[in-house]
Amino acid sequence: MVVEIVTTGTELLLGQIVNLNAAYLAEGLNKLGFDVLYQTTVGDNRDRMKQALTIALDRADIVITSGGLGPTQGDITKEVSASLFDKELSLHQASLDNIKEICAFRGYPMAQNNIKQAMIPDGAIVLDNACGTAPGIILENNGKVIINLPGPPFEMKDMFQKKVIPYLTGKYGMDSIILSRVLNTVGIGESTLEESIEDLILAQSNPTLALLARPGEVIVRITAKASTKKEAEQMIEVLESEIRNRIGEYIFGTDDIGIEEVVGNLLKKKHLTIACAESCTGGLLTSRITDVPGSSEYLYGSVVSYDNEVKISELKVPASILGSVGAVSEETAKAMAEGIRSKFNTDIGIGITGIAGPDGGSNEKPVGLVYIAITGHSGTKCYKNQFKGKRTAVKYRATQTALDIIRRYVKET
Amino acid sequence: MVVEIVTTGTELLLGQIVNLNAAYLAEGLNKLGFDVLYQTTVGDNRDRMKQALTIALDRADIVITSGGLGPTQGDITKEVSASLFDKELSLHQASLDNIKEICAFRGYPMAQNNIKQAMIPDGAIVLDNACGTAPGIILENNGKVIINLPGPPFEMKDMFQKKVIPYLTGKYGMDSIILSRVLNTVGIGESTLEESIEDLILAQSNPTLALLARPGEVIVRITAKASTKKEAEQMIEVLESEIRNRIGEYIFGTDDIGIEEVVGNLLKKKHLTIACAESCTGGLLTSRITDVPGSSEYLYGSVVSYDNEVKISELKVPASILGSVGAVSEETAKAMAEGIRSKFNTDIGIGITGIAGPDGGSNEKPVGLVYIAITGHSGTKCYKNQFKGKRTAVKYRATQTALDIIRRYVKET
Repeated sequence: MVVEIVTTGTELLLGQIVNLNAAYLAEGLNKLGFDVLYQTTVGDNRDRMKQALTIALDRADIVITSGGLGPTQGDITKEVSASLFDKELSLHQASLDNIKEICAFRGYPMAQNNIKQAMIPDGAIVLDNACGTAPGIILENNGKVIINLPGPPFEMKDMFQKKVIPYLTGKYGMDSIILSRVLNTVGIGESTLEESIEDLILAQSNPTLALLARPGEVIVRITAKASTKKEAEQMIEVLESEIRNRIGEYIFGTDDIGIEEVVGNLLKKKHLTIACAESCTGGLLTSRITDVPGSSEYLYGSVVSYDNEVKISELKVPASILGSVGAVSEETAKAMAEGIRSKFNTDIGIGITGIAGPDGGSNEKPVGLVYIAITGHSGTKCYKNQFKGKRTAVKYRATQTALDIIRRYVKET
Repeated sequence: MVVEIVTTGTELLLGQIVNLNAAYLAEGLNKLGFDVLYQTTVGDNRDRMKQALTIALDRADIVITSGGLGPTQGDITKEVSASLFDKELSLHQASLDNIKEICAFRGYPMAQNNIKQAMIPDGAIVLDNACGTAPGIILENNGKVIINLPGPPFEMKDMFQKKVIPYLTGKYGMDSIILSRVLNTVGIGESTLEESIEDLILAQSNPTLALLARPGEVIVRITAKASTKKEAEQMIEVLESEIRNRIGEYIFGTDDIGIEEVVGNLLKKKHLTIACAESCTGGLLTSRITDVPGSSEYLYGSVVSYDNEVKISELKVPASILGSVGAVSEETAKAMAEGIRSKFNTDIGIGITGIAGPDGGSNEKPVGLVYIAITGHSGTKCYKNQFKGKRTAVKYRATQTALDIIRRYVKET
C-alpha cells in the first residue's frame, strides 16, 4: 500500500516552521509496514491544493493530510478533499456538541466559525479529536482513501495513534511488520558510541542499526522486518543483547521512556524521596522530574536559589564559601545539595550551580561550567561539567546530566 | 517566479530525520521575494523522481532540489534532472581536481565512486562545494531552471548562500521583496481572535493576514510584498495599527520575542523583583523566567512546594486553609503568592496550584484546574483557569497564563 503525506499551510511554505508532522506520520506509517513514497506540502489555496491532492490520489492508495481543519476561512482541506470524491458536507451534530462542550469547558462561548468544523462530508468516518475542536475524517472512494488530520502536532499525534492506526491495521491487515526498538543512552558521545559498535553498523542488513544524536543524549535504533511480531522481536533481541554487552551502562531505557521516568521509577521502587536546590537551571530539573505522573510520591519540594542571599538563608551555604571560592564551585554545589536535603529531610538532595550564559563567564569559569552535587545515604559526590551551546541548551544538558547522576546514585544505593 | 523545493532521500520518507532543508530553503527564497508554492519529498528511485520533477517543472519556474549528489549508486538527482532537459553528462575536470584535493586534505585516497560526482550535465553552471565533494549544478532550459544542491545541511546552506542567491538575484533582479511581521497574542482563543478581525482577513490581498495557534498562544502574521523594504514596512504598519486597535491588549510582542522576555523587560524597566511559589507547574514558570539572559536581575528565587508540608513550612500557608478548602484553591494560591513574596521580600509574588493530571482530579476539581495568584504593590489577585491536554501541556499552559498575568499586573503597576 502506497501512502502520500500531504501537509498544508503557509507557515510551511514560508519556512517559518519545520515540518515535524510529515516526519512523525512517515515514521508511524513505515512502522506499520506502509510505503510512504511521497510527501507534498501545499498552501491553503483551493486550486493548488486540489491539484496536489489529485496527483496524490493518482500515485498513492492512501493520502493522509495534516492541517487546514481549523475554524478559519483559510482552512479548506476537508472541503477540497470532499470535492475530489464528489461529496457534499452536512452538519454533524455529535461533532458540534463536542465543540460546544470543549468551548464550555474552556470557559468561553462557541464562536460561529466553529460550526464550520462540524461540517462533515457525507459518508465520511469521523475521527473525534480528544485534544481540540477539529474532528478528522476518513473518506473512502473506489479503493482510494483520504484521511484528513488536524495540523497542531499534539492533536494530530493523538488522533493518529488512537484512530488512524486501528483503522489502517483493521482495513489492510499487514502481511509483514516492521518493528523498531530504541535504546536511549546518556553520558556517551555519538562518535564514541559509534566506535563501540562500528562492526555491527557495517554488518547491518536486517535488523538495521541507526544512531541519532539528540540534545543531551544519543539514541540507537534497531529496526527489524519480519512476518510476525514475535520473529521481529527475536531478531531485535539478539542485536540488542550484543549492544548492551558493550555499552549497557549508558543505556537508561528503551523506546519512548524518558530519563525522568526512569529516575522516578527507581525512586519509587526504593522508596526514596528527593529535593533539589537549583541555581543556573532555574527550576528546570524539578520541572522535568514533575513531568512524570505520580512524581509527588518522591519529589518533596525544591528551592531555586538564584540570588546568593537565597543560597545562604534557605540552603545554609556558608557565606565564607561564597566569598572565597564563589557561587559556581564544587563546595557551593555540595553545600546546596546538603542544605536542601537537610531542610526538607529527604533521602536525596541535589545541588546545581553554574554559568548558563551568555554573559557571566570568565577564563577560569567559562560559560557552560556547571557543578552538580548529589547527597544521600551513600555520601556526597560532586561532578564538574562543561556544556556547550546557548543558555537554554546549557540548562537542558545540565538537567539531563543531573538526572543521569541521580539514576546512577540511586541504582547503587 | 514560482519555486518548488524537491527534497530527496529515504531518511525523509522513513521519517528518520526532519526536513530542515526544506524549511531553510523556503525561508531564504521567500525573503528574496520568490513564491515557494510547493514542496515535494521523493525517494532515490529513478521513475518516481523523474515523475516528481516533471510535475514540479510543469507548475513552477524554478525547481530546487536537495540531496542525491553523493558518490553512491542511490545518488541519482543530477542524472534524472539532466535527462528531463535531454542533457548528457561529461567529466568536469575542475570538479574532479577539487574532489581529489578534498580527499587529500582529509588524508584518504579518492574512491572510484567519487568520479561520478564530477560528471556534469552539458551546459550546466557548476556550483563549487566549499564544504564537501559534491558540486551543485544549475540547468536552464526554455525559461525553466533546475538547481541541484547537496543534501547535508551545512553543504547545502553554504552553497545556497554563496552561489544560489547571487545567481537568482542576478538573473531575476528581484523587483519586489516580501516582509513579514508576527504579532504574538496570549489570552484570546483562535476563533475569537479571528472573529475580531474577520473583515480584515476576508479583505486581505497584500498584505496578507494569517493566524496560527501554538500551545498557549495565537500568532497573527502580516506579510507584505512591495518594491522596497520601506514600502513593505509602511503597508504592514497600516494593517498592524488597525489590528492593535481591536485586540491590542492581547498582543504581548512582535516577531521572535517570547513572553518570558517581554515580562523580563517590563520588570527591569520598572525595577521590580519577583519570586514564585509553584506547585503543579513544578518549577517550569521559574525555569521559563530564567531562560532569559540577565534574569538574575529580577528573579530572586522560588520554592517548588510539591508537598503540603512545604506549603506550610516554607510559604506559611495556614494548615486550616489546606484542611478546609484544600491545596487547589484560590485561598491557597493567594497564600502561596503572599508567602513567597514575604519570604524573599520581593516586589511581586506568584502562587500557582492546580491539578496537572492525569490522576488526582474530581468532579469538583477536575484535571487541568489551576489557580494562579499574583501579589504586589497593587494588592493580591487570583485567577481560576481550566486547561486541557496532558500533564505537560497543562503545566505549559499554566506558565503561559501566569506570564501573561505578570505582564498585565506589571504594566498596570
